[in-house]
Amino acid sequence: MTTRRPKPEKSQGKPKSRKRSRTSGLPPGTLVYIGPEREGPVHITAMTYDRSGVTEFPVLDPEKVGQIPKDHLITWINVDGLQNIHAVETIGKQLNIHPLVLEDIVDTTQRPKIEVTDDYTFIVFKTLTFDETTSEIVSEHVSLVLGEHCLITFQETAGDPFDLVRNRIRSSVGRLRTSGPDYLAYALIDAVVDDYFSVLEKLAEGIEVLEEDLATRADPQMLREIHKLKVDMIVLRRSVWPLREVLNRLSKGDAPLVQKETIPYLMDVYDHTIHVIETMETYRDIVSGMLDIYLSSISNRLNQIMKVLTIISTIFIPLTFLSGWYGMNFKYMPELSWKWGYPMVIVVALTIVSLLLYLFRRNEWI
Amino acid sequence: MTTRRPKPEKSQGKPKSRKRSRTSGLPPGTLVYIGPEREGPVHITAMTYDRSGVTEFPVLDPEKVGQIPKDHLITWINVDGLQNIHAVETIGKQLNIHPLVLEDIVDTTQRPKIEVTDDYTFIVFKTLTFDETTSEIVSEHVSLVLGEHCLITFQETAGDPFDLVRNRIRSSVGRLRTSGPDYLAYALIDAVVDDYFSVLEKLAEGIEVLEEDLATRADPQMLREIHKLKVDMIVLRRSVWPLREVLNRLSKGDAPLVQKETIPYLMDVYDHTIHVIETMETYRDIVSGMLDIYLSSISNRLNQIMKVLTIISTIFIPLTFLSGWYGMNFKYMPELSWKWGYPMVIVVALTIVSLLLYLFRRNEWI
Amino acid sequence: MTTRRPKPEKSQGKPKSRKRSRTSGLPPGTLVYIGPEREGPVHITAMTYDRSGVTEFPVLDPEKVGQIPKDHLITWINVDGLQNIHAVETIGKQLNIHPLVLEDIVDTTQRPKIEVTDDYTFIVFKTLTFDETTSEIVSEHVSLVLGEHCLITFQETAGDPFDLVRNRIRSSVGRLRTSGPDYLAYALIDAVVDDYFSVLEKLAEGIEVLEEDLATRADPQMLREIHKLKVDMIVLRRSVWPLREVLNRLSKGDAPLVQKETIPYLMDVYDHTIHVIETMETYRDIVSGMLDIYLSSISNRLNQIMKVLTIISTIFIPLTFLSGWYGMNFKYMPELSWKWGYPMVIVVALTIVSLLLYLFRRNEWI
Amino acid sequence: MTTRRPKPEKSQGKPKSRKRSRTSGLPPGTLVYIGPEREGPVHITAMTYDRSGVTEFPVLDPEKVGQIPKDHLITWINVDGLQNIHAVETIGKQLNIHPLVLEDIVDTTQRPKIEVTDDYTFIVFKTLTFDETTSEIVSEHVSLVLGEHCLITFQETAGDPFDLVRNRIRSSVGRLRTSGPDYLAYALIDAVVDDYFSVLEKLAEGIEVLEEDLATRADPQMLREIHKLKVDMIVLRRSVWPLREVLNRLSKGDAPLVQKETIPYLMDVYDHTIHVIETMETYRDIVSGMLDIYLSSISNRLNQIMKVLTIISTIFIPLTFLSGWYGMNFKYMPELSWKWGYPMVIVVALTIVSLLLYLFRRNEWI
Amino acid sequence: MTTRRPKPEKSQGKPKSRKRSRTSGLPPGTLVYIGPEREGPVHITAMTYDRSGVTEFPVLDPEKVGQIPKDHLITWINVDGLQNIHAVETIGKQLNIHPLVLEDIVDTTQRPKIEVTDDYTFIVFKTLTFDETTSEIVSEHVSLVLGEHCLITFQETAGDPFDLVRNRIRSSVGRLRTSGPDYLAYALIDAVVDDYFSVLEKLAEGIEVLEEDLATRADPQMLREIHKLKVDMIVLRRSVWPLREVLNRLSKGDAPLVQKETIPYLMDVYDHTIHVIETMETYRDIVSGMLDIYLSSISNRLNQIMKVLTIISTIFIPLTFLSGWYGMNFKYMPELSWKWGYPMVIVVALTIVSLLLYLFRRNEWI
Repeated sequence: MTTRRPKPEKSQGKPKSRKRSRTSGLPPGTLVYIGPEREGPVHITAMTYDRSGVTEFPVLDPEKVGQIPKDHLITWINVDGLQNIHAVETIGKQLNIHPLVLEDIVDTTQRPKIEVTDDYTFIVFKTLTFDETTSEIVSEHVSLVLGEHCLITFQETAGDPFDLVRNRIRSSVGRLRTSGPDYLAYALIDAVVDDYFSVLEKLAEGIEVLEEDLATRADPQMLREIHKLKVDMIVLRRSVWPLREVLNRLSKGDAPLVQKETIPYLMDVYDHTIHVIETMETYRDIVSGMLDIYLSSISNRLNQIMKVLTIISTIFIPLTFLSGWYGMNFKYMPELSWKWGYPMVIVVALTIVSLLLYLFRRNEWI
Repeated sequence: MTTRRPKPEKSQGKPKSRKRSRTSGLPPGTLVYIGPEREGPVHITAMTYDRSGVTEFPVLDPEKVGQIPKDHLITWINVDGLQNIHAVETIGKQLNIHPLVLEDIVDTTQRPKIEVTDDYTFIVFKTLTFDETTSEIVSEHVSLVLGEHCLITFQETAGDPFDLVRNRIRSSVGRLRTSGPDYLAYALIDAVVDDYFSVLEKLAEGIEVLEEDLATRADPQMLREIHKLKVDMIVLRRSVWPLREVLNRLSKGDAPLVQKETIPYLMDVYDHTIHVIETMETYRDIVSGMLDIYLSSISNRLNQIMKVLTIISTIFIPLTFLSGWYGMNFKYMPELSWKWGYPMVIVVALTIVSLLLYLFRRNEWI
Repeated sequence: MTTRRPKPEKSQGKPKSRKRSRTSGLPPGTLVYIGPEREGPVHITAMTYDRSGVTEFPVLDPEKVGQIPKDHLITWINVDGLQNIHAVETIGKQLNIHPLVLEDIVDTTQRPKIEVTDDYTFIVFKTLTFDETTSEIVSEHVSLVLGEHCLITFQETAGDPFDLVRNRIRSSVGRLRTSGPDYLAYALIDAVVDDYFSVLEKLAEGIEVLEEDLATRADPQMLREIHKLKVDMIVLRRSVWPLREVLNRLSKGDAPLVQKETIPYLMDVYDHTIHVIETMETYRDIVSGMLDIYLSSISNRLNQIMKVLTIISTIFIPLTFLSGWYGMNFKYMPELSWKWGYPMVIVVALTIVSLLLYLFRRNEWI
Repeated sequence: MTTRRPKPEKSQGKPKSRKRSRTSGLPPGTLVYIGPEREGPVHITAMTYDRSGVTEFPVLDPEKVGQIPKDHLITWINVDGLQNIHAVETIGKQLNIHPLVLEDIVDTTQRPKIEVTDDYTFIVFKTLTFDETTSEIVSEHVSLVLGEHCLITFQETAGDPFDLVRNRIRSSVGRLRTSGPDYLAYALIDAVVDDYFSVLEKLAEGIEVLEEDLATRADPQMLREIHKLKVDMIVLRRSVWPLREVLNRLSKGDAPLVQKETIPYLMDVYDHTIHVIETMETYRDIVSGMLDIYLSSISNRLNQIMKVLTIISTIFIPLTFLSGWYGMNFKYMPELSWKWGYPMVIVVALTIVSLLLYLFRRNEWI
Repeated sequence: MTTRRPKPEKSQGKPKSRKRSRTSGLPPGTLVYIGPEREGPVHITAMTYDRSGVTEFPVLDPEKVGQIPKDHLITWINVDGLQNIHAVETIGKQLNIHPLVLEDIVDTTQRPKIEVTDDYTFIVFKTLTFDETTSEIVSEHVSLVLGEHCLITFQETAGDPFDLVRNRIRSSVGRLRTSGPDYLAYALIDAVVDDYFSVLEKLAEGIEVLEEDLATRADPQMLREIHKLKVDMIVLRRSVWPLREVLNRLSKGDAPLVQKETIPYLMDVYDHTIHVIETMETYRDIVSGMLDIYLSSISNRLNQIMKVLTIISTIFIPLTFLSGWYGMNFKYMPELSWKWGYPMVIVVALTIVSLLLYLFRRNEWI
């Protein structure tokens, strides 16, 4: 299970719901995949484990999801590739998942949410990673269906955070192996939220670079970078803010399938989301302060330019007039034939220049 | 039943209540049609259906609405053409609808709301469609009166979303045919909310076009387009925000006529309205970021213009002074008769130009 | 009873509390009239009515308010002319109204509020009318004291909305005649709120005119008009926002003297105030968008002006230098005596102009 | 007892907590006077009164506060001069006041608050007066300790509002003399809140003056005045907003020592604080609107200046070029020797001027 | 125990979580130190005290923390040097602290929070000091674990506020010695909050300096200083705002280990945090007002510059044209040979200058 990302969705916050209108006019419960174009079959892997051991195997046929051998107490079924509507529908039927829940699973524009029923708890959230090549935040849609002895997860593509948890299950008999599927759900959410901090750090780097740039230059490109930072923060907020609500409800014990021992852990990850949100608020304030600096530095530069123009004009325009004056061709113009006429004009010109320079200096223009 | 829209109301958010003052001084319960000018008679259609079958027939005389044969369990009476006050009043009397409710039905400026009584649940909401020819969002006023076995709907003109539901009733024995009028009401609201996404996507397209334009040019027309986008979002928010409240109350089980099985569906459409609202908030942030870019690009352009002026002036004003100086007609002006006077001036002029160009380069002006 | 308005209070939102300091240092319950200067005696009219008939008579002496013959079940006493402190105090004593309530009745700067006691419900609100001659919103202070069989109303001057209700009582045996004084209070509030819509429509007209003006011209006067619109909206908000709260409490059944049948009507007028508030919010957003357009159109115009200046300067400054150059009077200046010197200069000048025009065109300046 | 104010604290909202750090590192309950520098001894006056009479006497020694003869039912002890820490501490000990309460009494930066215990109710608030000589709002710190039969008040300096109440006690057997110390506390708060209106009216005057100035001129000084108004409003808000909360709690009957008959009076003064707050909000909106007008009038003026420059330049630069052209000294320049050369140039110059004037007129520049 | 601060963390609000990503992928409960690079061993000191006496001793080996002799009733164990993960982990195990709590103790980016369990109350908060040498606010991470007879504190480095409390314990038998560890926890928090006021006063000084500067000059550097002030306030708010919540919960009696007698003290320090927050809000409003003044003073200066340019240009450009005109070399130019030609031109030039000066004066330009 590798970490392919065929065509990462451009999560610029804008064209999210582009294909949302495909569902228009369809009866509720009709599955329609909403998201970036993707191809390839669905990948289903099952993992059963408990204190005594771990068994893993791929599930090749969606029809056979219902017959997964339950070697151990806890079963984790992971499904990658939401574009394969038919497979998701089959899995849903086998595992008795409500059609409206399936609709949310294949709608990658669905915001994070929680739905608690007596039989299962359904949680939607987003993974966020920073794509170094495109400098963009890549968001992916993840759904969890938490049953009594079983957790079913749905992803757009296979991804890092889940692999980390999978390795922890395989490698040692830690808390993960001794707790129920609710702790597994927590571990997955926690791994995803940990990634949010990486994205946050990327934003912080961007802000630092911009602040240094602001101190030295202020070209129009910067405004676009500030705008991009803002949009990135909007994307992040849209993912984290509702997740915070989800975790708040979970950590308050609203979901009967979440055991009491897991609640402190959920409160911990809830705390992390608050940390992300507060840091983001701080960044937002800083970025909007940078915008003020940028805008006022443009004004300052205009002032600088105008000062140069005004100094040059103010010095030379009177001088030009003076020389033009004695360029007049009047027959009777006594100064022209004076012996000291030309030296006098030189003195007048120097006086004007000195006076103006003095005035500029006094007004702190130069 | 076609989709005529004789004179679509310009839902620019402003002149909505233009004719609201017509009701001034009238006793409450007096029916006054408030809305865009429309003509033509009222159209009433009745549909009764249940699991066993569907019967449809037009009702030509409003007086006979009370005598519609109830072939099947569930009756859906649809009324198009609110401008026909007398007909609406007659229907209201026949079906025992409170005068204040009728007042809200014919007031197309009425905001979305819900009123729950023991006998019926009254819901007002808005359809929104994007009119491609005028590039405007067209809003229409829809009212539902949900009784125990019957749903009465009032529209300004006949429209698409209702036709889609009607076809689903006709075509198959799905959930619509097996559930009560509360599910029918849900299906109608859901169809309308699905249309909101189309409007949202139109807005997203407008934003994308504007963003591309911003990158290449920034003319005053853009500000008007940004303003139009903002006003469109205000129209959308005015329709969606109160509808969210309506659906929240419905999905909390406040209305006794809504059955428990329908509630998950209402929660789903409530979720959709939250999605619309959050996406709109995101758009608003992006649009206000674009406004910043636009405004600062105007300032930048001014800087650009001033730079050109200043460079030209700063280079030529001293040169012009120089040539004016030796254009003076003093008799005793020794330089004029020097052999190397003219070449010297050329050298001085070239020196000034070189120096200024060097300074401009150093300040990164050119 | 005519609609005189001797000196309408300038309700510009600012100097409202000008005379408020007159009460400073006085013990609570001391009646001090706060409001615009007015003269003339108090007018008291009484109206008793029920299903069987209506009796109206003026009350000439405030001392005799307590002895009004109660021919019919419901009594409505209306008092115009709050500046007459002594008369109001006498009426208050006769009818057993608490001194603090009387203080609020004669304080025209008192914000809308409700006070519920076991004996009566005291409601303060504002009438708003648009004065066509001064283009200003005129606000008047109205107080209702609702008893079990009696309603006492206090106005600054006699006014339209109350006359409309009075006529409805006189003319027919409608709901007004068959219901209690709580319905009468509702009818009065409803009549006043209906007038708010007229004011709202005036604002909408003002906004439309401004929007059209913005498209064609943008002079400094517009900013003042935008400012005036904003201040008008503040006045409106100050009247409507607390009234909404008053109606919310009334429609929740907080006042024991309000009967259950009247509550749907109060909810209806509560709904109207929400409509007014939401429309106003929309207007505020639109107006602040207009401010952005106005401010940026000023910047655009500056750009336009600077462009013209720069084009003219950039074309002529080099040419002027060129001609100045050959205006120099050096003895040894070979070009001057060349045969083709002058045509050469013409060619150079034309080349410069062509080149600059080409550059301007390329930069889309002209 | 006169109204000395030796060194009124500059309540500019900024340096309030300058000496707050003096308490740093001290154990809680250590009394430290925080506030403007003041000198002089403490003044203690006691007043006992009831329906039957009033007795007043100064208390010279703080040690003897505990032995004040209680001639009448209600005792009011007033202490002026908080800078005298030792005296305040002695009084506190004599009257059994908690050290933390004493700390708040001598900390003039303490925000308005209420503390309710079984034995007493402790209320902190601020008097506000407008100092005509410095045009500044002067704020003073007042504390009330309300016991069962006794009210102790602490002031920075003796002041007007308390004298007014004192006179009312002396002069007549009104409600003040017949009610308990809770009504006395109300009367003092009411007197102070009445003064807020005077401050508000001063602000209103300042706003009016500024608005008139805006209409005629817009110099940089105005911005400072707008800023000062804003800071004054911040000072006012900091005093009124928490007092509103205090009064809200009092009027809800939270304090057991407040009798039921006093509650309508407390609600009345609570209402006054809301009036102050709402008026202030209105002022804030108006002032920020004025800021917009001011800023845009600066831009407009720049446009005006640039227009003048551009008109002058655009007219004369071509003319100057023209005359420079025929100032060239080429030997072979046929126009110079034409008979009609000079008149022709005059005609060309006039044509240029006319054309430009026409263009300016068309663009509405002149 | 000195006050070394080897490398104070730059608490600029931005790069706080730089190393947060180090925890990514680790199972929860894995201790990772997050914070500025620090070296050196951990310092553990223990202090046991009660009314009868005080015993202090250093603990050299973290393994022996569990065997601290309990000479007196109350034990305070203080740990400095969070970078030493292994030592912290050992201490945690000895004292039975939950791994998630330990994780928060060594994460210096953790926001202030409270966790209440049956066995202990865990509180996180921040010390803030103003570093005079770097003009920056230095924030440090402090954690308290409050047990029944014992308080364990964790600091990044040893610091002033704690030393002050330690001295009070040593010096006298005050409330500290007679109360439980909850009062000790209060005393530590109170000492830290007292330091916040010092930081606030530094901000106030910065604001005052800036205000004076604004009145005299307005250079681009000021904007950076305003920005720095804003960022400092963000840092402060991030520390104080959540601490306020912590204290609110504590003073409401949520923590069973906090005794009733301590609650008034906690309410007092809660009140102090509100004071800090409100003062900060005031500062924020003032600073944003200063930004307006700064920005408009830039615009004003531009106007000033443009005025100078325009006055100079407008006076000399017509004069230059005039002199250029009579510099033309036409053969037939009658004025040139007039006797009074030159004086006439002088008169015309003076007239133009006078007229323009008059116009400038009238427009109040000079």
